[in-house]
This record gives sequence, structure tokens and C-alpha cells, in this order.
Amino acid sequence: MTQFEGQEIRPVTLPFVSTVDKAHEAVRRINRAAQEGLRPVIFSTLVQDDLRAVVMQANGLFLDLFSAFVEPLERELKTRATHLSGRAHGIADPAAYTARINATNFSLANDDGTGGDYGQADVILLGVSRVGKTPTCVYLALQYGVFAANYPLTEDDLEAGRLPARLEGFRRKLFALTIGPDRLQQIRHERRPDSRYSSRQQIQYELRAAEALFARYGIPSLDTTECSIEEIASRILNTTGIERRLRP
Amino acid sequence: MTQFEGQEIRPVTLPFVSTVDKAHEAVRRINRAAQEGLRPVIFSTLVQDDLRAVVMQANGLFLDLFSAFVEPLERELKTRATHLSGRAHGIADPAAYTARINATNFSLANDDGTGGDYGQADVILLGVSRVGKTPTCVYLALQYGVFAANYPLTEDDLEAGRLPARLEGFRRKLFALTIGPDRLQQIRHERRPDSRYSSRQQIQYELRAAEALFARYGIPSLDTTECSIEEIASRILNTTGIERRLRP
Repeated sequence: MTQFEGQEIRPVTLPFVSTVDKAHEAVRRINRAAQEGLRPVIFSTLVQDDLRAVVMQANGLFLDLFSAFVEPLERELKTRATHLSGRAHGIADPAAYTARINATNFSLANDDGTGGDYGQADVILLGVSRVGKTPTCVYLALQYGVFAANYPLTEDDLEAGRLPARLEGFRRKLFALTIGPDRLQQIRHERRPDSRYSSRQQIQYELRAAEALFARYGIPSLDTTECSIEEIASRILNTTGIERRLRP
Repeated sequence: MTQFEGQEIRPVTLPFVSTVDKAHEAVRRINRAAQEGLRPVIFSTLVQDDLRAVVMQANGLFLDLFSAFVEPLERELKTRATHLSGRAHGIADPAAYTARINATNFSLANDDGTGGDYGQADVILLGVSRVGKTPTCVYLALQYGVFAANYPLTEDDLEAGRLPARLEGFRRKLFALTIGPDRLQQIRHERRPDSRYSSRQQIQYELRAAEALFARYGIPSLDTTECSIEEIASRILNTTGIERRLRP
């Protein structure tokens, strides 16, 4: 839907439509919505033929995200698909599940300069406060099973213009995040309005000092101003070549 | 692909195919893969027509996840799509970004019985060690902007058969996770092999005591044995009716 600018969208999710009764209930909700406004657009991920047949009768544009591709795949692979639901989210792969849990625990234990188990880290994110380090680490863990630690540059680090000693041995794992001053001010202001922490002057100083430090040590860096967490994570993997332990 | 059982799949992601040169490079990689094994299946999310035209020429089954639906939507909405890339992951909505960051920080600050800022929580997950509380909380935060805390039931809690006093005031926010003993043993064994913690007897005791406690207090619970984190999160939202602060 992001391809259609200026359209106001009210997304509604109807999960667990797993029986014919629930399919009929979904149809009733869609039809009610159709009476209240524009004709709904139905993005269906139903795989069971009997349920799909019911929901297709609702008053809306029915877009079938699933069978549109399952049928060509059946022809290509010369195999019949199971047409059974619940296949995509099972824990079919316990090793992947474990990788995910371990990586998530690692990111929590090594957040914000704590822990410091950098030997085990795949990547160590570096940056000033509120640049997006923590959510990115957690996302890398949950989504890709990557062990990501993060270290917030303190004022002492920035004044010294040097990497803290505990990071020295792990330079090749460092990846820096930066951000535009306007955006950072907005984010910090929400946290602590009208403080030194959220002042223009302080923010500009921190960002300039941090960027000088990244340049001095040749640490790869990414400007997150216009990036979502998904995109930051994806760009880090793409730049560093770190292997994903889970399928995206 | 999970609809096709017994097929061995080697997923390769080619992100940031943003120029005609990169599109040609993608075609070369696909064609090389075609020579080494089965004909590749190409799942394309390209939105720029010139790039798509290049990649379509690769030796593989080309499935266009995007334009298959953009065209019917253009007709329905009587609007032309932008056909510009990078629309889906922008931080178009700074409020959503902030909700996500705040929820993630909340989940880290209120993990594993720490923090205890339960007044601000949307939900408090309860369960024995390694049942999946932490990754579920973090996922709820990142994916839905939901404020999720978690509390691990201690042996003292289980022996007393009572809710800890600090949770008493928040009964309506509690949601319990359980798991089958075999699966829990497998998970705990990886963490601390051959310990009391991962022994059959201890696990059975903890699970039985926890389930008795959930029943006694009428706390809704979910068996996570066969569930992925995505599914646990989705079922919690569906059961509790907690509002998502972000679009899925």
C-alpha cells in the first residue's frame, strides 16, 4: 500500500481464520466495512481451499497473496503443495529457534555497554545515545539470529576522541550509527524535554565528535535518519557480510 | 515454500538491487545458480520497471510479489502507484518509530522480573525459565509497539502456589506461557547440560506447579511447544485484545 501515496488506509488484521464459521464471520466484518466506506481490499493468506472460497465472496477486492504463487510453484516443482495452514510459523527447525533465543538473550545481556562479552559478538554497534542501537541489536537477534552488542559513546569517550580500551581488541567488529541533528533532537526531546541532553548545542557536539572518531578509526558507519529498524539491520548485514543464522 | 514439504531449499537474498548494473549482477548470480542445480525460483519485490525488466530475463521461474497486486490495486483505487522503491521501510511515521523504540526499551528494562514498572505494561508474561517470555516480549515491542514485561516464576513462588505480591495488583495484565516437558528439557539442556535445572524431574515439577498456579488464579495461558515467537505474539494479542500501536 505504500506504493499509493496520499491514500488513507485503515488496516485491519483478522488472524486465525481457521474454520468455516470464522471465515463467515470475516465476511460479515468485511461487508460491514464496505457499507461504511470505500470497498475494502482483502489481502488473503488463506491456504485452505474451503476457507478461501468463503472469504472470496465478501464485498471487496480479493487479492490472494498465496495461491497466486503456489500454483506456478506447483507446476515448476512438479509437486502438489500441502494447502495446509500453520506451515510457515511452526518451529520446524529447533536449531533456528535456539539460535534466535540465544541471540536475543545475548543482545539483552550486552546492551548499552553492559556485559561486554564482545568476543562472542558478531557485530558491536557504536553511537551516541538514541541513535537506534538497542532496537537494531534486538531486531538483528530476533530476525537473523545475529549476536549484536552495542556500546553508547560517553562524553568521556567523545572528549578523548579515542575508542574505549575495552573495544580496542574488537575493532573489526565495530559498526557505527549516526543520525541527523534535527531527528536526534526530536527523539531526545520526547525523552527529556528542555534538557541539556536534548539541546541543539549538545547534540551537534556529540554527533560531530562521534563522526570524527569513526573517521579516525575507519569504522564503517550508517546514517539512520531516514531508515527504519528493518533497513538499518539489513544494511549492516549487507555492509559487513555477517552471516544470517536464520532465514529472513 | 513451506507449502512444499520435503523440498530442500537454499534461500539466497539479494538486497538493494537499486541500479541497472546491480540488476545485471543479480542475473549473473541467478544464471550461475541455474547451472549448478535446479532452475532457481526468483521471488521479486522490485518496483522499478526498468530493474524488473532486467531481472525477468534471468534463467528461473520469475514470481513477482509486487506488481501482481499493484496492478489490480491501481484499477481498484483509480490511482497510479509510485513505482518507486524504498517506500515500505521509510520512517514515514515518526510516532510509530517512537512507539517502537519506547516499547523496546520498556521490554529490556522490565525483563526477567527486573524493573517492575507493571503499571505501564500492556501485558505481563508469566512462566518458568526458558518458556519463551523474553523473545516474545521483545518481539511484541518491535513488531507491535506493545509494552510487555515478563516475570519468571521462582521456586519460592511455585512452592507457595501463590502469585508474588508485586504482581497482585496487576492480575488482569497477566498472561501465562507453558510448554511441553520434552521441549523444555531440550532447551534447558542446551543451556546447562546434565544439571538439576535441565533434569526431567525438576522440569515436570515446575511445569505442574506453574500450571496449577495459572488455573488457581484464572490466568489465560498458551502452550508454546509448537509455536514460533511470531505465533505466540499473535495469539497473545488475539486472546487479550491488546491494541497494536504499529501496523503488523
